[in-house]
Amino acid sequence: MRVTTIHAPGDIRLEERPEPEITAPTDAVIKITAGCICGSDLWPYRGANDVTPGTPIGHEMVGVVEEVGSEVRSFRPGDFVVVPFCTCDNTCPHCRHGAQSACLHGGMIAGGQGEYGLVSQAEGSLVKTDGPPDATMIPSLLTLADVFPTGWHCAVSAGVRKGDTVVVVGDGAVGLCGVLAAAQMGAERVIAMSRHEPRQQIARAFGATHVVAERGKEGAAAIKELTDGVGADAVLECVGTDDAMRQAFAVARPGSTVGFVGVPHGVDVPVARMFAKNIGLAGGVAPVRRYLPELLDLVTSGTVNPGLVFDTVLPLSEVAAGYRAMDERTAIKVLLEP
Amino acid sequence: MRVTTIHAPGDIRLEERPEPEITAPTDAVIKITAGCICGSDLWPYRGANDVTPGTPIGHEMVGVVEEVGSEVRSFRPGDFVVVPFCTCDNTCPHCRHGAQSACLHGGMIAGGQGEYGLVSQAEGSLVKTDGPPDATMIPSLLTLADVFPTGWHCAVSAGVRKGDTVVVVGDGAVGLCGVLAAAQMGAERVIAMSRHEPRQQIARAFGATHVVAERGKEGAAAIKELTDGVGADAVLECVGTDDAMRQAFAVARPGSTVGFVGVPHGVDVPVARMFAKNIGLAGGVAPVRRYLPELLDLVTSGTVNPGLVFDTVLPLSEVAAGYRAMDERTAIKVLLEP
Repeated sequence: MRVTTIHAPGDIRLEERPEPEITAPTDAVIKITAGCICGSDLWPYRGANDVTPGTPIGHEMVGVVEEVGSEVRSFRPGDFVVVPFCTCDNTCPHCRHGAQSACLHGGMIAGGQGEYGLVSQAEGSLVKTDGPPDATMIPSLLTLADVFPTGWHCAVSAGVRKGDTVVVVGDGAVGLCGVLAAAQMGAERVIAMSRHEPRQQIARAFGATHVVAERGKEGAAAIKELTDGVGADAVLECVGTDDAMRQAFAVARPGSTVGFVGVPHGVDVPVARMFAKNIGLAGGVAPVRRYLPELLDLVTSGTVNPGLVFDTVLPLSEVAAGYRAMDERTAIKVLLEP
Repeated sequence: MRVTTIHAPGDIRLEERPEPEITAPTDAVIKITAGCICGSDLWPYRGANDVTPGTPIGHEMVGVVEEVGSEVRSFRPGDFVVVPFCTCDNTCPHCRHGAQSACLHGGMIAGGQGEYGLVSQAEGSLVKTDGPPDATMIPSLLTLADVFPTGWHCAVSAGVRKGDTVVVVGDGAVGLCGVLAAAQMGAERVIAMSRHEPRQQIARAFGATHVVAERGKEGAAAIKELTDGVGADAVLECVGTDDAMRQAFAVARPGSTVGFVGVPHGVDVPVARMFAKNIGLAGGVAPVRRYLPELLDLVTSGTVNPGLVFDTVLPLSEVAAGYRAMDERTAIKVLLEP
């Protein structure tokens, strides 16, 4: 089968590899209907993370169950499933506590930009749709593997409540899903910080009531003006850089919480400001499975359409072009069809 | 009048200064019944903070209202009052949001180790007792100025809930009050990390169910064993050093929150661990006034006796000896009688 691998920064290849096989009774093999490129895939692509040449890359996929191990009882070949990017047994103490991304037996999906994928802990990880979904539903279902629950987790972590004024830092696909989450949670005002017109449009479609194009001090001043000098009730940091973190803390009101879901790279947490202003920081790797029942309902009922974040659809054979487009920010998020 | 001043690290003096005067209609002058030395007073004493020679020091006091400004309507001369170490109008947006320590018109009490103290924003800041309190009640009432609400805030920030297993890092007076707070909030197990027998005794009196004397990796291993490998549901970091912060994150379970109330000195927040394990960080300067009605009730009803943290009582004239005792950890907390 074909699967995407990374050999060095900027060096993405589609290679032939053996199809994955069941090696544990908790495994499942999925025939991938759609995969995609994550903002976090850009870290190794840009050389910010170490790369082992030839490593399969990609951790977001939806597809059809091909085969299951003997301990996987709730799924069978033919089921259409969403695969959370972090697997979990959904029964360990951390899972029961809602921290499925720290599952004692969990791991991370690899090789999601390919034709077949292996899922460990399939019983605890997967969720299935009622029958095969309509093709138009695939993009939104695919967001459930990572980007939508990650944005959702950021809003949960920031403690978004009905009536709040929420600021979202970052207009990547996660930030846009953060806007969607905050709006769904009843935020009265959702302020998207974005300089890019196409992203601003999606933000508004997702429920942003305001867009602030300025950054840094000017951005903070704009938020201050919008909030009568008070600051935001909750802030979603959806990037993972030090600039984004500083921006988030600069606009958070005293007593609020900054949610964060972007993998931190070079982030120096402003602990003195946190202390002086009682601004908390919460978040991390999204416990996707925890949110899936609720979010799958939102998607299949048509209440939300997070699939809008996919502004580019490419055949798997053009995966390298997909990486370039996301790296150059000419694409928001690229869906790959095997 | 006499008031304590600091001239350089280690140089504490009792000096004659003019009695404070009402200069704003929101001011009140308090005749101090009791003041005390705070762990945070040791930062400048030890040279960790800059010192302006001759600065009055001390921010915790209770006493009797001597005089009030024209806009102070709820208090009059003769009232016995608790003075929160950070003043607030209790009406600004931050106060209404529960972040009184970030009040737009607030400030910090100075000169609390003296005979008379000035309180700005007296109407919003002060709370009074029903009549003059019994002398035996003074120590516990004095803890309401800072140390008890600060420990309480740490437990609130860490999200302590009924049935939780809570770890308290730091066996200073704040940490001990954190133990008391966690126990009052219904924690099933409160694990105090303490190596000092007298402090362990107070921790147990305050509701600690377990004491762990080990620190660092050994301390973390002991907590892990106590929690079946899971970690604590909530952790209270009551010191402010990097070691204490690392200890706190090392024992917090995935999905939990570390509360922090010790003024951070050289703290490098372990953001990678926070992210990987979804452990939040929340807290800061305690919004004392927010908690005072509830905590004053707990004290005056005799439900709690936080005054036990005062293991040393000295006349104001011996304030310098009080600092030495706290610096050398021969005293937990020193009460000063003018």
